[in-house]
Amino acid sequence: MKLIQREIVYKGKIFDVAEDTIEIDKDKVTKWDLVLHNGATAIVPITEEGEVILVKQYRNASNREVLEIPAGKLEKGEDPLTCALRELEEETGYRATHIHKLCAMFSAIGFSDEKLHLFIATQLKKGQQHLDEDEYITIEKYPLHEARDMIFSGEIEDSKTIVGILSACYFLNK
Amino acid sequence: MKLIQREIVYKGKIFDVAEDTIEIDKDKVTKWDLVLHNGATAIVPITEEGEVILVKQYRNASNREVLEIPAGKLEKGEDPLTCALRELEEETGYRATHIHKLCAMFSAIGFSDEKLHLFIATQLKKGQQHLDEDEYITIEKYPLHEARDMIFSGEIEDSKTIVGILSACYFLNK
Repeated sequence: MKLIQREIVYKGKIFDVAEDTIEIDKDKVTKWDLVLHNGATAIVPITEEGEVILVKQYRNASNREVLEIPAGKLEKGEDPLTCALRELEEETGYRATHIHKLCAMFSAIGFSDEKLHLFIATQLKKGQQHLDEDEYITIEKYPLHEARDMIFSGEIEDSKTIVGILSACYFLNK
Repeated sequence: MKLIQREIVYKGKIFDVAEDTIEIDKDKVTKWDLVLHNGATAIVPITEEGEVILVKQYRNASNREVLEIPAGKLEKGEDPLTCALRELEEETGYRATHIHKLCAMFSAIGFSDEKLHLFIATQLKKGQQHLDEDEYITIEKYPLHEARDMIFSGEIEDSKTIVGILSACYFLNK
């Protein structure tokens, strides 16, 4: 199977939608929609006390506030690590001195090309919180094992946050 | 913040796109796009030998074949567990006798309301593989710890598969 044509059918602020024409075999094609997204980064900030710093913000996807690790959309051509460090300081007011790449993932491979790069940050220093306009965020800290329990109790249900916390537990041998 | 209006701006086969109007405070509103999706389920099938069964299929999101746990879209009003058991047998030819809910997640909370329900299946029995038209799938099996390594080496990069494998490792104490 391969992609033989891509037509933009919707243009939005955060994403566009393409109608892809896929060749299944020599005699057969099909059409699949795809959300085109520039990609994103997210970072798991771990304090000296072994707590993970989460941000709580309103999401229209769930029409309520959601607990997440700090994250942000990539600018075109932007380096994922640079973006992760910027978002960490802007959203939480902490600066990371030790950073490690955890993994990368397609968030919703069935309908979007968004690729998200995940990092873990330790040995945090106090920096300067600076929220974008329309960004209303509160900060919450949880011991890492407690955050993991919140995944299985349903209190944490954002995919990048789940991957970040479970990866951090493995990485830090918790 | 709250949702005050939702207008469908694109209708597709798998998802629609809405332009939401969000009230930020009494004097201020903003517009956010959202991909409306019916939800999905995915299942981590573990063999008697401790291997995880993965399916490999072409995705236009990455324009190549991708390793994933078995998964499927929910029909309107469908029970996630029923859907997971059906997809497991249809895609892999295995039937599960022991099932456990792992967690649920918003795949891409920044731009979609898709909620995905994850299960783990053990004590598998041979059933009947039955692929949909346009579904071209091959099966691969990996020891669970090897599948986990493949997340951090970049060979596995589908979010639901990452969450499924890391959750299964925790659940099975691996």
